[in-house]
Amino acid sequence: MAETNAMGHPKLQPKFPVPSDIQVSQDIVASPGLLPIADVAKEIGLKDDEVIPWGIAKAKVELKSTLNRLASSPDGNYIVCTGINPTPLGEGKSTTTIGLAQALGAILGKKCVACIRQPSQGPTFGIKGGAAGGGYAQVVPMEEFNLHLTGDIHAITAANNLLAAAIDTRMFHEDSQSDEALYKRLCLATNKPFNAIMKKRLVKLGIDPSKSPEDLTADERSKFARLDFDKSTITWQRVLDTCDRHLRRITVGMGKNETIQPRGTVKGETPREQHNRETGFDITVASEIMAVLALAKDLPDLREKLGNMVVGYSKSGQPITADDLGCGGALTVLMKDALLPTLMQTVERTPVLVHAGPFANIAIGNSSIVADRLALKLVGEDGFVVTEAGFGADIGMEKFFNIKCRESGLKPKCAVIVATVRALKMHGGGPPVSAGKPLAVEYIQEDIPLVTAGCCNLAKHIENAKKFGAEFPICSSRIHKTLPVQVVVAINQFKTDTDAEMQAIRQASLDAGAFDAVVSNHWAEGGKGAEKLAEAVVKACKATNSKEFKFLYDLNLPIREKVEIISKEIYGADGVDFSELAEQQMTQYEASGFGSLPICIAKTQYSFSCDASAKGVPTGFRIFVREIRSCCGGGFLYPICGDIMTIPGLPTRPGFYDVDIDTETGQVIGLF
Amino acid sequence: MAETNAMGHPKLQPKFPVPSDIQVSQDIVASPGLLPIADVAKEIGLKDDEVIPWGIAKAKVELKSTLNRLASSPDGNYIVCTGINPTPLGEGKSTTTIGLAQALGAILGKKCVACIRQPSQGPTFGIKGGAAGGGYAQVVPMEEFNLHLTGDIHAITAANNLLAAAIDTRMFHEDSQSDEALYKRLCLATNKPFNAIMKKRLVKLGIDPSKSPEDLTADERSKFARLDFDKSTITWQRVLDTCDRHLRRITVGMGKNETIQPRGTVKGETPREQHNRETGFDITVASEIMAVLALAKDLPDLREKLGNMVVGYSKSGQPITADDLGCGGALTVLMKDALLPTLMQTVERTPVLVHAGPFANIAIGNSSIVADRLALKLVGEDGFVVTEAGFGADIGMEKFFNIKCRESGLKPKCAVIVATVRALKMHGGGPPVSAGKPLAVEYIQEDIPLVTAGCCNLAKHIENAKKFGAEFPICSSRIHKTLPVQVVVAINQFKTDTDAEMQAIRQASLDAGAFDAVVSNHWAEGGKGAEKLAEAVVKACKATNSKEFKFLYDLNLPIREKVEIISKEIYGADGVDFSELAEQQMTQYEASGFGSLPICIAKTQYSFSCDASAKGVPTGFRIFVREIRSCCGGGFLYPICGDIMTIPGLPTRPGFYDVDIDTETGQVIGLF
Repeated sequence: MAETNAMGHPKLQPKFPVPSDIQVSQDIVASPGLLPIADVAKEIGLKDDEVIPWGIAKAKVELKSTLNRLASSPDGNYIVCTGINPTPLGEGKSTTTIGLAQALGAILGKKCVACIRQPSQGPTFGIKGGAAGGGYAQVVPMEEFNLHLTGDIHAITAANNLLAAAIDTRMFHEDSQSDEALYKRLCLATNKPFNAIMKKRLVKLGIDPSKSPEDLTADERSKFARLDFDKSTITWQRVLDTCDRHLRRITVGMGKNETIQPRGTVKGETPREQHNRETGFDITVASEIMAVLALAKDLPDLREKLGNMVVGYSKSGQPITADDLGCGGALTVLMKDALLPTLMQTVERTPVLVHAGPFANIAIGNSSIVADRLALKLVGEDGFVVTEAGFGADIGMEKFFNIKCRESGLKPKCAVIVATVRALKMHGGGPPVSAGKPLAVEYIQEDIPLVTAGCCNLAKHIENAKKFGAEFPICSSRIHKTLPVQVVVAINQFKTDTDAEMQAIRQASLDAGAFDAVVSNHWAEGGKGAEKLAEAVVKACKATNSKEFKFLYDLNLPIREKVEIISKEIYGADGVDFSELAEQQMTQYEASGFGSLPICIAKTQYSFSCDASAKGVPTGFRIFVREIRSCCGGGFLYPICGDIMTIPGLPTRPGFYDVDIDTETGQVIGLF
Repeated sequence: MAETNAMGHPKLQPKFPVPSDIQVSQDIVASPGLLPIADVAKEIGLKDDEVIPWGIAKAKVELKSTLNRLASSPDGNYIVCTGINPTPLGEGKSTTTIGLAQALGAILGKKCVACIRQPSQGPTFGIKGGAAGGGYAQVVPMEEFNLHLTGDIHAITAANNLLAAAIDTRMFHEDSQSDEALYKRLCLATNKPFNAIMKKRLVKLGIDPSKSPEDLTADERSKFARLDFDKSTITWQRVLDTCDRHLRRITVGMGKNETIQPRGTVKGETPREQHNRETGFDITVASEIMAVLALAKDLPDLREKLGNMVVGYSKSGQPITADDLGCGGALTVLMKDALLPTLMQTVERTPVLVHAGPFANIAIGNSSIVADRLALKLVGEDGFVVTEAGFGADIGMEKFFNIKCRESGLKPKCAVIVATVRALKMHGGGPPVSAGKPLAVEYIQEDIPLVTAGCCNLAKHIENAKKFGAEFPICSSRIHKTLPVQVVVAINQFKTDTDAEMQAIRQASLDAGAFDAVVSNHWAEGGKGAEKLAEAVVKACKATNSKEFKFLYDLNLPIREKVEIISKEIYGADGVDFSELAEQQMTQYEASGFGSLPICIAKTQYSFSCDASAKGVPTGFRIFVREIRSCCGGGFLYPICGDIMTIPGLPTRPGFYDVDIDTETGQVIGLF
């Protein structure tokens, strides 16, 4: 009989050298095989009727009934996995999230769930990489994970684009119809009373919602029917989950039938006008609906957030929402299944909840609140939930604490910060690292001074993590006193790393106040490679006092001050400068009631500053806010600091060129 | 204990008056409840490992293993459900398909599967209607059926748009790079040998595919790397499953980064050029990939067809395929799950395979070959498969026979032609019928002369069905001799129809050579209402001799002649006129090896002719072919006769305005 791990499952038998990700996945599926997903669900304590099998080795988990059943159960230990400022190659944050969960579950025998984001399909076929996990620390089957999953991103695409069509079509009809004609078609032709969405708008407009459609005055009819878009303010874009740079900026409405006789003009006297405008596409994961999915607490909250999304402003400066367009209900219907997290498993049969995947720059870059909450209830008091925060800790962890935890009320106990010898060498002054080019010799030979010099970057992240609880300024400390959030550094091992280099990182981590710093080799060894990391995390969780957890800023502060606090405390900036546009926007948001939203700064992940080339811990810089966009449904404002690309392109030889299928076996070839 | 039907399931208890479709569906789900989808699968003879549960009350069926297991089983009786030329309100073709299947299964106790198309989500939120089935003859849960289903249409959107991005990006790179630079990035930078997709292109170009990338001559490298698109010939459009008229015609590539330094020019001397062009979006169901899905026979055939899709022509007139772009493998990987039909059930627990949903004008408007084939094997010799052919029989049935059956090799035994008193009155000279307007008095009061006058339309369809087997010209005959395909007319009953009116239709049907003509009231009564129709269909299937089945035209005839045969024999036209463009295209297709493809004429469904207002059986008209498009992957040419709209718009008050969700129960509100 085969050896078993701490959960009674076949012990992982890693191959050396480690095969490609897809090969590892297909090997595991072939032998020892996956645990039937219904059994994965059962092991983590889900009842049969709380699980909906959904395709190959995937299931969705019922949210409401499961959370109701577990309402009085205590939450498990909440761990966020984040990283230092990375090289463009990535430092293995997702892989560590999965590897740590495997170690906690398969090796230490703890109840454990990993919560990760669904990857965008765009980059999967563009520049290779981007799947969550790799080697022997990954979610399987990886084809299922990377392609379609359970359709959540597709649902977002559908919902987003329905709203986009609603906007252009509404303007088309408003531009060519009188107020009375509009109102007649919208409210009278169907002989129905006002529905809930209409009543919401009536209340917003100060019109008695108990009136029947026939009873509105001419003035009330105009106010109700004419949204009166100021076209220049429309921020809602269409989306696709594809890397398609030619859609970044497009002109729509160029068709021969997309012309109008302008309202109030006479046919023949005034020529018809082409009803076109410039707009663009974003990649689906950069959409506001994705941000909403990540931050929604339950179905009623999803409905509320989707309805409240602001798509633009009227000519008189009033925000126009999805519900003003009558669209919030349909959007929620399209998103109702997407609200349920998807259950999968790791190569060691650890349960994984895959859910949401918002961009880490313009949104929070974290998996969803509902997945984390569900997982915490399922693992219970002695269990562990490892959730990932995208980009480096200056962005991902800060947003995780200040936005996601604030919205969810959940309190993390431990922040795992992933560091690599490679990235710290870069921060120490090593030559540039870029994708697709060979690494410089500094990165493959021992160079302790370079590593040590770069550890300042790691130290600053550790100090930042500790700011969520104590009064500032905080002195770093080696004393393992009880903290709200303990920091454990995961030194993600590469084969060229030397013991001395890794020891240098460990020492620097402890000096900066980390609870512990541990070398981890999960990519090559699976959970076994992360066993010591898992032990450190278990200990760290015991040495916390979540009651002392506090946010970095108060929501009621002016927008300006919130941006300044993050910039100074987390990034180490001297201050913040706002463009004239950003100033106007702050005034507008505060006037429209959006002033008390949390702040989600969009900036480069490669540096604490806004200059991607400023490595280590830059000082003497200021943050420049070019503009501030709003995500009123998701519930945050996002200042733009630097160039933000919201839909990638494809290289000359895109990833898809290597992807094919074995038509005999049905096996996918060349995905990674 | 509750009464049971012929299959041992709870007997349907229809309410009167019939509630809305969504109410009927939600009532059934509440009580007596659905059969677990695994049990639906078991009842129809599927093994556990041939079924993949896929969301709420849905499953996908493994194709290869199931068909292999059943390879030696005889096929069941194959029935196609089609209709007369409809009014804009629709005459209940889908509802009859479902109702007939319910009668064959739940009432007569036969093994029976209905095969229907997945509806587009666009119209679901646009102008109401469009779901397959209604009242007590529908697929449940209807929300699951109408929204997302198992993601097949979303997979098509993703695949289609990946190819679109590949085209624009390739042109972008070709327009700015030398042949050698292109070749280097495509073939040399990765240090890999040529993969299968590349070898296919090498063979096409006459280059030895056993060569390694380094060994190609400069000339060979240029030929391989430069597709050299003639931009004016690109027919590949992007798609969305949304009604969005502003995307019909757009300009892409307007972004500040979508500029190029034209190849061969010097920076500074020649200004950069905006890399933009006009193109457009279609609705996803109008895409070639949807046509491919409907006509693919298995995974290898899917791979082949997707790779062979022609997206445009080179400057020298060579067709450029998805595989030339290196994209066919990735497209197949994106479509591998979509190839598996989705199993659902009717309100009476009859199994339904939902699969594919190609437009009925520019494509075949039929459900998929693989679903039909699977269903025929599952029901076996004494069982029945009812499959639907979209639009009227002049389009849907003709394409079903000449394209779908030719590709599949499957032979239908019976064509059910759905007729209504309403539509026949219109053909008899009644006033126009249009959606959203009250019906004229002629349609709600008995008017036998009007019905009788309109029966010519029905008679012509009956005669057409009989052309697939005998020598023409065919005399209509009341003798029930053995025919390849028998016709049974289903008179779809409305509450205002009188017995005398329905009797008139029955008489006309028999006079025209129908095997039988039966009144059916499945919408209000479910299977019980279609019992007599089902009995007639069972008898008709016995009175056939499929060996005599023959196609209307030979594939090897010139394109022109094939179009003429369909136009004269099926539509009753005097002849066909081709535009100059269409003439050129015929020459080009025949030169490119596409001359022997079958013909899929795109024309109005409201008349035998191309004039939607020409009711009854128009005579003395000619068909004008404006252009002929190709669907080289799907495997047909489609002459365009009239205006074809490939992405609808939204009305002033779109369907989505009434859709919402009860956030307490999660129930969908107002979908239909």
